[in-house]
Amino acid sequence: MRVSGTGIGTGIAIGPVVRMPDPLPDPADVPSTIGADAERQRAQRALRAVAAELRRRGGLAGGAASEVLEAQAMFAEDPMLEGDVDARIASGKTADRAVHEAYAAYRAQLVALGGYMAERAVDVDDVSQRVVAEVLGVQAPGVPHPGHPFVLVARDLAPADTATLDLDQVLALVTIGGGPTSHTAILARDKAIVAVVAAEGASALSDDDEVIVDAENDVLVLAPTAAERAEAEARRAERDARRAAPLTPGRLADGTAVPLLANLGSADAAAGAVAAGAEGVGLFRTEFLFLEATSAPTVAEQQLEYGRLLQAFDGKKVVVRVLDAGADKPLAFLHDDTGHEDNPALGLRGIRALRAHEQILRDQLTALAAADAETNAELWVMAPMVATVEEAEYFTALARELGIRTPGVMIEVPSAALLADRMLQATDFASIGTNDLTQYTLAADRLLGSVAALQSPWNPAVLRLIAEVGAAGRGLGKPVGICGEAAADPLLAVVLVGLGATSLSMSSAAIADVRASLLRFDAAQAAAMADLALAAVGAAEAHSAVRAFAAGIAARDGDG
Amino acid sequence: MRVSGTGIGTGIAIGPVVRMPDPLPDPADVPSTIGADAERQRAQRALRAVAAELRRRGGLAGGAASEVLEAQAMFAEDPMLEGDVDARIASGKTADRAVHEAYAAYRAQLVALGGYMAERAVDVDDVSQRVVAEVLGVQAPGVPHPGHPFVLVARDLAPADTATLDLDQVLALVTIGGGPTSHTAILARDKAIVAVVAAEGASALSDDDEVIVDAENDVLVLAPTAAERAEAEARRAERDARRAAPLTPGRLADGTAVPLLANLGSADAAAGAVAAGAEGVGLFRTEFLFLEATSAPTVAEQQLEYGRLLQAFDGKKVVVRVLDAGADKPLAFLHDDTGHEDNPALGLRGIRALRAHEQILRDQLTALAAADAETNAELWVMAPMVATVEEAEYFTALARELGIRTPGVMIEVPSAALLADRMLQATDFASIGTNDLTQYTLAADRLLGSVAALQSPWNPAVLRLIAEVGAAGRGLGKPVGICGEAAADPLLAVVLVGLGATSLSMSSAAIADVRASLLRFDAAQAAAMADLALAAVGAAEAHSAVRAFAAGIAARDGDG
Repeated sequence: MRVSGTGIGTGIAIGPVVRMPDPLPDPADVPSTIGADAERQRAQRALRAVAAELRRRGGLAGGAASEVLEAQAMFAEDPMLEGDVDARIASGKTADRAVHEAYAAYRAQLVALGGYMAERAVDVDDVSQRVVAEVLGVQAPGVPHPGHPFVLVARDLAPADTATLDLDQVLALVTIGGGPTSHTAILARDKAIVAVVAAEGASALSDDDEVIVDAENDVLVLAPTAAERAEAEARRAERDARRAAPLTPGRLADGTAVPLLANLGSADAAAGAVAAGAEGVGLFRTEFLFLEATSAPTVAEQQLEYGRLLQAFDGKKVVVRVLDAGADKPLAFLHDDTGHEDNPALGLRGIRALRAHEQILRDQLTALAAADAETNAELWVMAPMVATVEEAEYFTALARELGIRTPGVMIEVPSAALLADRMLQATDFASIGTNDLTQYTLAADRLLGSVAALQSPWNPAVLRLIAEVGAAGRGLGKPVGICGEAAADPLLAVVLVGLGATSLSMSSAAIADVRASLLRFDAAQAAAMADLALAAVGAAEAHSAVRAFAAGIAARDGDG
Repeated sequence: MRVSGTGIGTGIAIGPVVRMPDPLPDPADVPSTIGADAERQRAQRALRAVAAELRRRGGLAGGAASEVLEAQAMFAEDPMLEGDVDARIASGKTADRAVHEAYAAYRAQLVALGGYMAERAVDVDDVSQRVVAEVLGVQAPGVPHPGHPFVLVARDLAPADTATLDLDQVLALVTIGGGPTSHTAILARDKAIVAVVAAEGASALSDDDEVIVDAENDVLVLAPTAAERAEAEARRAERDARRAAPLTPGRLADGTAVPLLANLGSADAAAGAVAAGAEGVGLFRTEFLFLEATSAPTVAEQQLEYGRLLQAFDGKKVVVRVLDAGADKPLAFLHDDTGHEDNPALGLRGIRALRAHEQILRDQLTALAAADAETNAELWVMAPMVATVEEAEYFTALARELGIRTPGVMIEVPSAALLADRMLQATDFASIGTNDLTQYTLAADRLLGSVAALQSPWNPAVLRLIAEVGAAGRGLGKPVGICGEAAADPLLAVVLVGLGATSLSMSSAAIADVRASLLRFDAAQAAAMADLALAAVGAAEAHSAVRAFAAGIAARDGDG
């Protein structure tokens, strides 16, 4: 039996299913048989344990997940809530029932307040479930640890779920919801985990079911036959061999160079990128320097960190993105003065926020220029969320003033792509962030499961915008990189080159597959694939047309 | 002295300033001199009065504003908060100080809970201010009623502020914040109120200052000279004359027909549109039928309402948009199953939400087809938030199946514009919603003041997308209407015709100015103006270039 979904990358895996646990049933309302004192002890112990566990997971998770978990820990420690639990126990309830009722009453109060407060009901429910599970000594909601390698099947994975996921044991990730830009998909690409998302039919899977997770073909094979198993094993071995191929520079079959760069979130990841054969860094995210801080890092602190990164890529290109903060990535010291935003993805973020706090941008550019002067890497620096030519001019002038030799802009807002010719006249290079560009072009939140089906970078409208930037770059002789998730899709990577991309940046784990894919096609074929995709009616049709073209070449060359 | 801003429309007004009151200072912490009982009476009376006033304003406002006001009234009646006020009075505080402290403590609790709850702090502050003002007998925050015609100057106007605005007394609206798609701007266009928004320098204005509000030139003139006054009076008179011109059909100077249609939110507004010379309806919003309902309206109920509308436009075109609901426009019965969305503007809304609840869409289309069969208007029906060709095909097929003769799509998502050729092959007509199209193209929330500067439909990227749709319509011989706020801008309206729009739809109040503007230019001039705008670097440059071109024609023709 086959279940279709959206494959992430080209991997394949076989193994037994482990499902994320379903929610607990409501505790029965039966009188306590052990007395109020014993029940109270059970409740208190469980509340303490859950608060501690949430704090521990928060510490491991870091970032936004950490805040969510900290807020949940506060619910588990709320003295008013504990008082209510005690009162219900005093009236004869069991600990689990008393916890359930007290949290349900609190939840009802929040819902009655309506609006934003009502949204916290989900967090209260989660804490309630954890405490009840702890009281009963049953498995709490959350990622299971079965003790053997497994295919994790979940409705969707939240940052809190993946924070403590044991990646050595996870053969593949399957989500019933989510989409190609969901948290699960990003994690899968980042760690090269085989994954199929948005696989509605996967809800039929049970623990220990054998399943083939075939990301390349967007499918799950349930209860595979011996033949299906053998074919999957062969493909897995073939892919392993491909990934073990020599670390040559990225190029097409005709020798056209397409540098393969790494997306990095900290200097610590540099060694892994070099080991994977990255020819430089196409996107260095700098948020990590700011996220944990209560005040902006100093120029000296930043310079040290940038210096570490640049030293790891001696003689190579390193593209650094300046701070990309906003209401959805809040920084305590940056956003004290910003109010609530109804749609933070459409709010004061990226270059808009930096411009409102120019000293932070000046310090960062100063630190980058100083680190550049001390090292031999080729430093490029770009601004996120540029929407207008005027913003590109602003950033370019400021960066040059502060000693940056190669300033550029990220193209992730549709207007920036539509005005690419004027944008590239105003700066030195462009780098296309396909995740946000897809999100805005389709007006579909890339983290929202219910609109996941819309979020494909294969959509011809998105490819059309990329083609505009590619054409502008070619016309002006300026580089156009890709640093979104799209570059990590081996087949789409070829299309992107056909659209005019001059370099591709991705998670280090994706480089091997993309390198192998580029070597299968020459520039004329890449351009033909791009034209096929641009002319398609939708994302699925673009993907199919390109896949069929590639299969035709493979058949002709006898390598398929 | 001149202060620049963003003019809405082309109006001009002169009059005395009335400012929205500034927030009250915190009440001083001095001991009560009248005793606890008297203080308690003051506090209780003020709490009751404010709750009643908020409920009254909520009743007048309706819709979303009503819910906000109702929630605020609940804060004023909260027994826990009142208990805290009493306790503070018992300890010797004055009523105003006790209210201030109790609400501040409650606010701090909300802020400590963090996240969404913290956002309600603004509402608590507002109620606290109102109660303190009531205790002190001073003017509460909110729209003033000075008793004479005035120019209202505010930081920005919320729906709650405008709910009870006396439009007969308001000569003009000036906001320091906001932008061309803010609530204030939309209200101004809808009611043809002279307005300049995003005028930062307006914060220097005081009550009774004389000011010229010159929307056409995006400027406020403070302390005008006699000459400036005379010129403004002359222009006001000239505009009044233009608005009193005969209600001819929309056309360019060379006779090219450009039907001028009305945007309507209910059948009640039909008479006003006909009186303004509307040649039909270009956008009939149907949300009003659903917003107040706890269950979906029946087919019969809907048929009655649509019939009323169509009868008012006998023999004319009426374009109805099916329900545009989403997390930002929630319907109780539609969204019970939808969770919180972080970015509702990028969420499950429009055709996405209808598809998830197809019976609602089927009922609406059935009611529309039945009303069409009984009347002689020419009914067209379109779907909102279409992003893919597949969605256009889905809607078109379903609409035809249920008896709609002319189905079409709204173009408000960039992908829909970029695939316009394929979109228009899949359906009968397109109508461009410039507000949302601008929002998504620039990735800037159209209701968020801090990104207001980005939200101009004059942006060449937005115009480029409109040109794509215009070209596709021309190529396929299919109509392309405009139903966003852009069509109400008299000069931009000419550009839109130059880009290929075949009809323009706007608030009835805007029709006279647009009619007069179209008559000043022929089709070749409109095309030249469109080319100028498309080639510009940004919105301001596009606007200036077109304005200069128009001024040149006016000078040559001797009519300026």
